[in-house]
This record gives sequence, structure tokens and C-alpha cells, in this order.
Amino acid sequence: MAVAEFRTIARCSKTRARAGVLALPHGTVDTPVFMPVGTQATVKGLTPAELEELGAQIVLANTYHLYLRPGAELVAELGGLHRFMAWPRPILTDSGGFQVFSLGFGLEHGVGKIAKIFPAEEAGERPRALGGEHRGEGSPHARLTRIDEDGVSFTSHVDGSPRRLTPETSIRVQEQLGADVILAFDECTSPLASYEYTREALVRTHRWAERCLAARRPTPQALFGIVQGGEYRDLREASARAIGSLPFEGVAIGGSLGKSKADMHRVLDWTIPLLPDAWPRHLLGIGEPEDLFAGVERGVDMFDCVAPTRLGRHGVLYVPTGRLHIANAVYRDDPAPVQADCACYACQHFSRAYLRHLFAANEMLGPRLATIHNLHFLVGLVRAIRDSIVADAFPAFRDRFLSTWRPSGG
Amino acid sequence: MAVAEFRTIARCSKTRARAGVLALPHGTVDTPVFMPVGTQATVKGLTPAELEELGAQIVLANTYHLYLRPGAELVAELGGLHRFMAWPRPILTDSGGFQVFSLGFGLEHGVGKIAKIFPAEEAGERPRALGGEHRGEGSPHARLTRIDEDGVSFTSHVDGSPRRLTPETSIRVQEQLGADVILAFDECTSPLASYEYTREALVRTHRWAERCLAARRPTPQALFGIVQGGEYRDLREASARAIGSLPFEGVAIGGSLGKSKADMHRVLDWTIPLLPDAWPRHLLGIGEPEDLFAGVERGVDMFDCVAPTRLGRHGVLYVPTGRLHIANAVYRDDPAPVQADCACYACQHFSRAYLRHLFAANEMLGPRLATIHNLHFLVGLVRAIRDSIVADAFPAFRDRFLSTWRPSGG
Repeated sequence: MAVAEFRTIARCSKTRARAGVLALPHGTVDTPVFMPVGTQATVKGLTPAELEELGAQIVLANTYHLYLRPGAELVAELGGLHRFMAWPRPILTDSGGFQVFSLGFGLEHGVGKIAKIFPAEEAGERPRALGGEHRGEGSPHARLTRIDEDGVSFTSHVDGSPRRLTPETSIRVQEQLGADVILAFDECTSPLASYEYTREALVRTHRWAERCLAARRPTPQALFGIVQGGEYRDLREASARAIGSLPFEGVAIGGSLGKSKADMHRVLDWTIPLLPDAWPRHLLGIGEPEDLFAGVERGVDMFDCVAPTRLGRHGVLYVPTGRLHIANAVYRDDPAPVQADCACYACQHFSRAYLRHLFAANEMLGPRLATIHNLHFLVGLVRAIRDSIVADAFPAFRDRFLSTWRPSGG
Repeated sequence: MAVAEFRTIARCSKTRARAGVLALPHGTVDTPVFMPVGTQATVKGLTPAELEELGAQIVLANTYHLYLRPGAELVAELGGLHRFMAWPRPILTDSGGFQVFSLGFGLEHGVGKIAKIFPAEEAGERPRALGGEHRGEGSPHARLTRIDEDGVSFTSHVDGSPRRLTPETSIRVQEQLGADVILAFDECTSPLASYEYTREALVRTHRWAERCLAARRPTPQALFGIVQGGEYRDLREASARAIGSLPFEGVAIGGSLGKSKADMHRVLDWTIPLLPDAWPRHLLGIGEPEDLFAGVERGVDMFDCVAPTRLGRHGVLYVPTGRLHIANAVYRDDPAPVQADCACYACQHFSRAYLRHLFAANEMLGPRLATIHNLHFLVGLVRAIRDSIVADAFPAFRDRFLSTWRPSGG
């Protein structure tokens, strides 16, 4: 079976940071890498040409969303996800498991609809305060969900029909979509779940991991396992050992990462040393600048996050000092670009005053330009982090960046 | 005073169609030309780079909207409209007069708010059934308006403040915006206006035309007069003679063009022979394919219309046989592009099935791609019309196109 080839080309002498090359059917990916999220087979508002121009090497798409609409059979009939969305480079699909979590959360806690807990636009995404796993971008309007040993039953948010995903169907759907990297079907437990429930779900997730491996067909797709275990050290360690012992080609770290950034760091510190060094490691749904540094220095190779696209749509732009809110009155007559030294299309052509006008006038070009800038910022930041690792100058680069960066909600 | 230079380079031997070159401060425009509408200093959803790629030579922006938001002084401070919206080629601004019409319409007929007559998105645009003058794209949420001899008082839809436009302030605002072509401030009467009222308004519009000429400063901007007169032959003829005798550099034909396409053709047939041959002629707000042919063969040189952008946002796409509604279930699994022989970015990369998915999933990329296709279609159609005039083959080209074209709402 043809699979991904991952090669480490440089290691930081002071931290676990490493630079690598991941060879996939649709091209190679230089790691560490930040991947834009294209939930519904489109990175919201951007064309593939724009994604290439801003340096994106790989995008993430959501199996859950595409399974429901337009359907994986249809995408397969039309030549697969790459052709469907006209993105010629690598794609990673998640397994739909995270949506099981976000949908099940409401049920487990007697809420019924996730929309009552999460703001509408964030349904299907991990609440940010909990460390953030933002695998999906969109509004699933979740319905009641039932998890059993075999899989998960739920109601489609698109047409209300009863649907079901199991490890076998998730793999089948991901094979129909045809991404370069696919993920094992997992149960992503709620951050409010007890130790006992988290443990029970973890054991099920490990059984499901074996079923995913058994279900896969001989495609050139790489299959990554998923480490769960919530914020519990013994469960995380057990999960890293269990998943690490299975014949996957890589691993994703998912689930609840605790209540603070320090908690997330601990989860990474427990987990990563127990994983095979030869595997690429993806930290699911994390992508704030300070988190990228924290992940890289602990050995993370791959990141995805909806924050740059979602924030962009709301007029919040990344700059080296933090987040710039373009609606602020101080930008009304500001002729400067969003970021002076930025090479993105938005900064090369438009003033802050113009962007502010576009958002004030509710013009679609505003979210587009802000999304381009934010993705350019994060993709470029992780590229620069990689360069610093290759030069064995990562800690100095990190310290320099973080000395001006003011995180929000840290 | 530097002004536009217009040169006719070819004439159809069978109709009044002509091909020309209009030299403006920001470049030359080959006529006949179709200009995309960028109401609020942005052609909805597109970047200037995309507009250039699809062949746009000149865009129209709306003085009324920009006067209210972000304000003409601000645009001037920031270097003018070209720099503000990063569009390096020619721009035409209307005078705000059409909005006087669309706002005043409600008052005149006791409706109060235009929104009750026009669908929300079309407020500020002429109702299509009446021949269509679509100078603005947006939702002004019109308020009460008072017309007097000196000018027009109205309420800002942006902040509720009382505002006023006169011939002098309209010219001043347009000079601050800095478009290549500016229009005289006119009163655009309602299609329901009586002969007496239309005549009264026309005489006022002619007085305003002289005041616009007196108010202009020595800029390189071309100032076009506007012919009004509703659907009344003697008023249209009087207007063409009056405006044609004044020292403008070109002319726009505005106002009510009657209740049918035949009415519109008659207005053009009455008007154009009385206008100076040396002037470029702009037919305001008209842009359906069959109307472009009807206009060109009667001597129109310039067109603008919001239809391609507005229809695109609603998933309606121009193809050589008419309008394709992408939401139609037949396109669910259609691997073909929207139009087989189309060179636009959308048709070169995406299937009908993908576009349908984007609209079904409410993804921003759908309206973007459809807008690109529609503008490419119309800009390219008028370019092809021009080529046929140069080859003295316009009637054959027109007949061939119209033999497959099925207009809607004709």
C-alpha cells in the first residue's frame, strides 16, 4: 500500500521542534505547516488560486459536512474532492468524530441542541476557552445524537434525515472523498466529561481505531490515528501508547486539552514523547500564534484552525502585535495597510480605511481581504518557524515574535 | 481644461452602431463598452485584479452612496476613488440624481418608503419591468425626500442625518471622488409621473445642467449631461436638443424608458439622432444582452447594469441560451462548467455541480464565481459586438447571438 512518507530534515537543539517533509499523493508538505480549513470543500471566500498565492500547501476539509452535503458518492462520481474543489495540492479530511463530540455534548448534558451552548456560527467547533479544537467551520445546527459500541446515529442538520457513522463508514466516506490524509473515527469527549466516561470513550476509540485500520482499502491515502484521553494524564499516556502501537502513518492529537493553555502544554508534554518519532503529528484545531509556537516546541508538525478565516470574516486581523479590529474608529482615515511589511494581496493594495469602509458597508470584499491577510499571516508565520528550525534558531525566533505579540483570551 | 477625447473608428453600414475609443485620464476605453457597477467603491465580491482579468475597462461607482459613506472628503484625503479602491483604470460616477428619483418616488405616490415598492435589495434601482435604470447596487432604505428648485433634501439611510444635494454639491462631491467621467445632477422622474410633472422636472433638470457646467472646476474629468423626458416624445426630443447644445463632453440617457422594450427602443430612436455625433452616449442602467444589441444598433456607446452582479449573487448565470439557475436539481451531478466555451476563472476550474453545492451550502465563493462569470459574459459580449462593428458584420453577429438567446421578462 502506498502511504505517506515523512522525513525529518532538521531538529532544534534546545526544544522538541523539528522540520520535516511529508510526501503525499498530491505533493509534498513542508512541516511544521498551518493548514487553512475548507469545511464544505471551500476555504470560506477564497479561490484555490488565492490559497496557492498565500502559500497554503494543504487544506483540511470536514467529512461530516461533506458526507451530508453534497454527499461522498457524488464527490466520488465527480472525480474526488481535489477535482471537485479544484485544489490540486494535498488535502486532509477529519473523520467526523469531532462532530460526534460537538453534537453529543448537548445530549450528554441535557441541552439537546448544541446551538444553545455555542454561538450559532461556532456550532461544531470546540469552545475556544477550553483550548480549542476547531475542526469544522459552519453551522451544523446539531441534533440529538446516540453513541453506541458500533458507531453514532444522528440527525442531519441539512434535511433532518437520520444518519449514521461508524469507523467503517467514516473510512469509506473518506476514501470516496479521496483526501491525501484521512483520520480514524474517534469519540471526542466533552471537556465536562468525568474521568470514568472519558476512559470508557477512550477504550471505545481505541477499538474503533483498529476497525478503521481493518476497514481501509488499498488506496494511496495516509491514515492517521487520533489520541484522546481528555485532560487526564494516565488516559493521554495510555492513548499515545495504544495508538502509537498500531500501523498508522501518522497521528492527530484531539479532544479536550484542558481549561488553559498550560493544560494544553501538559497534554502535549505527556503525549508526544510516547508517539513514534517517525510519524507526523497533527494538533487538531489549534492555531493561535502563541499556540503554534507552544505546539512546535513540543514536537507538533501540523496545525489547522478556523480562527484566521472566522476572525477575518468579522474584521479581526492578525498583526505582529496582536489582533487589529478594523471597525475601530481610529482606522477611519488610516491610509496605511493592515500590516506595513506584509506581502499579501490585501496589504499590497488597500488601506485600513478602505477595509474599514468595506466592513461598515457590509461588502463581501471585506471578509475576503481580511481572510487572505489572516491566512497569509499564519501560513507565513509557520513557514518562518520552519526556517528558524532549519537554521537552529527557533528559540530566538520564538522569543522575538512573542516579545511584541499580545495574545487575546490567553 | 483637459477633457475626454472620443473618436469613432468604425461605423456599421446597416445600423447606427459604431465603435470608438474614449481617452480618459486613467486610460482609454474601447466602445461600445459594458461597465460593471461598484456602488460602494467595490464591485460586489470582486478584487480589482479579477475585474482586470475578466476584461473590465471602466467601472461605475455611485456618488449618492459614497457621499453618505465613507464621505467624499475622506476619499479625497486618501488620494481619491482610484487609490481608495485600488482600481487603476477609468471610473464613472453618477450624480446622485437617480437616487433622488428612487427616494422621491415613495413620497410622490404617498408610499413613504421605497422599500415597500421595490424589494429591499433593489431599493435605489429602477424596477426592471419599466425598462430598468440600475445605477446603484445596495439597499439605501430610502427616506422622505424633498425636491425644490435649488436641490434635494433627504435623510441619510446610513445614520438618519439630514442631507442635501444640489447641482453644485453633486459636482463638488464628484470632483472629490475624482472619477474620469462625472454626470450632471438630474431629477429622474417616476415612471408614474404625469406629462405635466415630467415636463416641469425636465425644465428644472436643464437649469441644473447649466448650473453643473458653471460649477465645475478645471479638472481633467469629463462631464456628461443627462437626457430625461420620460416616455414622452416631445420631452425627450426637447431634452436631447437642450442637453446637446450645452458644452458637455458626452451624454447619458436616463429616466423612465417606458413600460416595454419597444418603448425603450423608441426613446433611443427619438433621442440619439438629435445628440452630437462627437459625444459618447451612455445608456444608464441597461445591460440585459438583448438590450445591449438594441442599444448598440441605435448608437449607444456605454452601458452599466447591476444585473450581472445581482443575478450572480442569486445563482443565476448568463449562458448563450439565456439564464441558467444553478440551484436547479438537474445540475446536482453535472460535471460540465457553467458554459463550455467560456474562458472565465469559474468555468475554467469548476463544475456546475460544485457551484450548485456552494450555493446550497451558502458559501461565499458561490456568489463570487457566479459574479465573475456573469461579468465576463457581458463584458466579453460587448467586446465581441465591438469587434463585429469594426468588421462591419454587426447585424449578422447580432442575429446569430439572438437566434439562440432566450431573454427573460422581455
